[in-house]
Amino acid sequence: MALKAQVLYDFTAEPGNNELTVKEGETVTITNQHIGGGWIEAQNSRGDVGLVPIDYVELNKSALPSFPAAGTAAPAAGVGNIVNSDLSFFDAFAPTSTQQNQANSNGNDPWSAWNADPSAGASNNSASNPDGTQTGRAAAGDSWGVAAQGHPQAYQGPGAEDDEWDDEWDDKSTAGYGEVESGDGNAMQRGGAHASMKLKFPGFSKSGPELYLLCKQIAKGKDKLPIYMGEVGPVWLYPESQLDCVVADPKKGSKMYGLKSYIEYQITPNTTNRPVNHRYKHFDWLYERLLDKFGSAIPIPSLPDKQVTGRFEEEFIKMRMERLQGWMSRMCRHPVIASSEVFQLFLTYKDEKDWKTGKRKAEKDETVGVMIFTTIEPEAADLDPIEVEQKCEQFNRFTKAMDDGVKEILTVGHEHWKRCTGPLPKEYQRIGKAFQNLSSVFTSSGYQGEETLTDAMTAAGKTYEEIAQLVAEQPKKDLHFLMETNNEYKGLLGCFPDTIGVHKAAIDKVKEGDKLVATNKITPQEKVTMAKRVSTMSYALQAEMNHFHSNRIYDYNRVMQLYLEEQVKFYETIAAKLRQAHSQFTTM
Amino acid sequence: MALKAQVLYDFTAEPGNNELTVKEGETVTITNQHIGGGWIEAQNSRGDVGLVPIDYVELNKSALPSFPAAGTAAPAAGVGNIVNSDLSFFDAFAPTSTQQNQANSNGNDPWSAWNADPSAGASNNSASNPDGTQTGRAAAGDSWGVAAQGHPQAYQGPGAEDDEWDDEWDDKSTAGYGEVESGDGNAMQRGGAHASMKLKFPGFSKSGPELYLLCKQIAKGKDKLPIYMGEVGPVWLYPESQLDCVVADPKKGSKMYGLKSYIEYQITPNTTNRPVNHRYKHFDWLYERLLDKFGSAIPIPSLPDKQVTGRFEEEFIKMRMERLQGWMSRMCRHPVIASSEVFQLFLTYKDEKDWKTGKRKAEKDETVGVMIFTTIEPEAADLDPIEVEQKCEQFNRFTKAMDDGVKEILTVGHEHWKRCTGPLPKEYQRIGKAFQNLSSVFTSSGYQGEETLTDAMTAAGKTYEEIAQLVAEQPKKDLHFLMETNNEYKGLLGCFPDTIGVHKAAIDKVKEGDKLVATNKITPQEKVTMAKRVSTMSYALQAEMNHFHSNRIYDYNRVMQLYLEEQVKFYETIAAKLRQAHSQFTTM
Repeated sequence: MALKAQVLYDFTAEPGNNELTVKEGETVTITNQHIGGGWIEAQNSRGDVGLVPIDYVELNKSALPSFPAAGTAAPAAGVGNIVNSDLSFFDAFAPTSTQQNQANSNGNDPWSAWNADPSAGASNNSASNPDGTQTGRAAAGDSWGVAAQGHPQAYQGPGAEDDEWDDEWDDKSTAGYGEVESGDGNAMQRGGAHASMKLKFPGFSKSGPELYLLCKQIAKGKDKLPIYMGEVGPVWLYPESQLDCVVADPKKGSKMYGLKSYIEYQITPNTTNRPVNHRYKHFDWLYERLLDKFGSAIPIPSLPDKQVTGRFEEEFIKMRMERLQGWMSRMCRHPVIASSEVFQLFLTYKDEKDWKTGKRKAEKDETVGVMIFTTIEPEAADLDPIEVEQKCEQFNRFTKAMDDGVKEILTVGHEHWKRCTGPLPKEYQRIGKAFQNLSSVFTSSGYQGEETLTDAMTAAGKTYEEIAQLVAEQPKKDLHFLMETNNEYKGLLGCFPDTIGVHKAAIDKVKEGDKLVATNKITPQEKVTMAKRVSTMSYALQAEMNHFHSNRIYDYNRVMQLYLEEQVKFYETIAAKLRQAHSQFTTM
Repeated sequence: MALKAQVLYDFTAEPGNNELTVKEGETVTITNQHIGGGWIEAQNSRGDVGLVPIDYVELNKSALPSFPAAGTAAPAAGVGNIVNSDLSFFDAFAPTSTQQNQANSNGNDPWSAWNADPSAGASNNSASNPDGTQTGRAAAGDSWGVAAQGHPQAYQGPGAEDDEWDDEWDDKSTAGYGEVESGDGNAMQRGGAHASMKLKFPGFSKSGPELYLLCKQIAKGKDKLPIYMGEVGPVWLYPESQLDCVVADPKKGSKMYGLKSYIEYQITPNTTNRPVNHRYKHFDWLYERLLDKFGSAIPIPSLPDKQVTGRFEEEFIKMRMERLQGWMSRMCRHPVIASSEVFQLFLTYKDEKDWKTGKRKAEKDETVGVMIFTTIEPEAADLDPIEVEQKCEQFNRFTKAMDDGVKEILTVGHEHWKRCTGPLPKEYQRIGKAFQNLSSVFTSSGYQGEETLTDAMTAAGKTYEEIAQLVAEQPKKDLHFLMETNNEYKGLLGCFPDTIGVHKAAIDKVKEGDKLVATNKITPQEKVTMAKRVSTMSYALQAEMNHFHSNRIYDYNRVMQLYLEEQVKFYETIAAKLRQAHSQFTTM
């Protein structure tokens, strides 16, 4: 059955780039979903075929009656807020769209809270609002609400293939993150300071960093997270052998007598070498737990985008698996996460009972949000609050700058992807055809003895057709990985403003310590404790930054090598083909 | 002084292709004339800079007051007819424009006279018009007239640097071809059946092929052009050693106390090894003589386009010299032309007196137009008129098909040129910049020991900037020659309809032989003579086609090799650079 899609926004084709001009509201037929680079191939009602940005269309639920979207008239539902479409999986390379996704968890501009003048931003954040960055969070929540409102998926009828969100889940309260898509249609309830928000933004709903800065009791024993002084400064405790796992073998399962189906992945950790099965919603549950427990100290990157339409489609499953693998590998590489009980449970549960017990325990964990800092124990002396603030500012500047750099690569890579899969191979093909056509004219000359020339020209023409194909296929061999890595980093960097925000809020609290003492809000002793604790937080941040840096160096070294290696092969293959074509001409 | 230009037609920039949208009548500043590929770089009044097709603008005569063009309101002066602009030299690669230039000598569609049904076209050409293809010629002349009318260059004020057309020339009557540009502004007098047209279209003004078919006397002696039966069929008599010449050393000369200046080229034939000097107008005179004398039997390609503005500009002189060299080499390679008295005079005149004497003699030559066939002596038996017609049709089909093939290569090459010099290097540059930017962010991390990575990433970035430059410069190294050769062939092929037209007209005359005898227009003996002579013409055409084919095979073999060779080097250079960049990363 032909896959139809609704055009969400006007798009004007760039001439000569194999694109298709579409108008908002138009219905097009998807002729190729696997273009990559944020594009799909579509055909309009006049039969014209061309590329359209994937985030400009929305796939129709084929077998379902479509209900009019309630509330589409809301003027706030602008282009920028309508995100996370059915096909958003394909958006990974489309900076505009993924940037929007980022906005979902971090507000419209995750960096906007941090301007060039640190004091201005700081006083803004705490003095005027005791709840720290709650303002920013609420705005982000709002944007979520508006986004869902403009998104037809929230109004899906019953019976949709949407098992990840509509089937029973033992603890309702944990469904928060996915709720937007599983709601009863009134997604607006998600906006503002909703009760379930504490699950998403742990550090803030529990009334900010002072919860930790002023808490009486500090956890003891086996839960401790020591921080050592390494060569590069504060570092986490790294295990002797690196945990890793393989995500593989996706299988379609079903329940409710086949009425509901889902994909189950097999995850095999290198420690036990015993596979466990998990569905996407289990990964999502794990993500929620990690965010809840470690989010204030460690940026937890989002899972690969959810997707409903075409969920069982081979290409999509492969891509989701690749990204789940990337996410799991990153989590395994983090010493704190890898050794956490909840992560170990996910990887090594023995049976259903073991899993359920562990699950309930994890959900009852109280060392979440800023309280994670109670478990951190730096070996070094306390830091001066000024030094703490400087370090925090430095990390903020760096992550922001890197975010810009990563986005630049994504933008350029996206453009390049488009050129390499669209106009460029088309042009090589035309060159190839032109050589072959002229050769075939030559063959018709009736003149004797020009077979050497015409054969050689035909071969040269075919070579350019082969080059066209090489060019079109190349991005999947090299640019893909460069884009995936940068995309992953974009996601990771997008979490930093939240994490750094927790630190900023704590620093601001400490800075107003004198005032708080003067107004009898805290005792002088508590002020001392706060300074000590903000120092502990800073060690955690430094350890996390050092972890980030070492991973970054590893990842970029690896991906740049892979990219250049494949590029070398690509150009060498073309050169060899052309050399072969050249050799067929007569030397004169 | 900034070079200003007037925009002739609206042009809408293709997004992302470094183009500039311009409106008819707008004045732009030319910022780079040497883009090549039919493009110039221009800046509009808002400061935007981008590429504009060269034939969409017209350079202002900087130092001159501009006179309003009389007759610009003529509706016939449509876009298609306004050609041969000041900058038409640059148009060489712009198929639209050169196609128009072709139209100047061959009518708007040189192939239109020859449709699929040979008899229809034939009867059209002769039966209804005793003057054979004169109709087509007159139309071509008209198109010239209209073209000049729409072209401001014809209305240049006095004092223009236009020495090629405005200085004294010993025999006024020979200035015909250039007259359009040297006229007093009323270029319309050039349209229609003008007196001087006989000089341009020799075979027809002398009342068609019957002049030869029915002439009493056939030339004897040293002027004979024998045709032998070679392996491939009828061939011209080829000399033992190939004539060639070198066009070099362009020098600026002046006359009238420096008021007029011109460029003189040095031409050294390999026979005497003694250089002679010639100006462009001398080449043009030679072209006229060759067209006059041999045009009915041998396609004489036009000289490289004339150009007024920037005539002394280095790049232009180099390009014109390259093309004059190409034209001269092609003439030298033709056994009939190379051995002709007028061509030998041009190459080997001893002194001014020798030149003037030879010049006058050449201009008085009566064996011109169709009369050239009186000098041809085939060694083989007479051909059957049906065979003659079949051969003629075959050549016509071939040259038309090749013309299409050549134009396809030019169109594709033109597009490719634009991409290689515009958006593609820009993109590689952006990739290079993105890598370098990210590398510089990494350098600011404060993390120890990542110099290897950042140095390698910077080097990779610089490599992509180098690749950008390689890509942008490549077309001048390979595509240029492919384009030049095809452009030359396009010119040559554009002459075939005229040459073949002479044969067609002769065949048609012979076909109505019975009717002519019946109506006492000719005697039965004359009918026999006509058949014999059309057979001689056919041998000449076959010899010419065989000459064309052997040159074509040589030329395309050579240019394809050169193209592929340079392409191999190009891709290998890139691969080597990337390999070098790759080696700078740490192996893991």
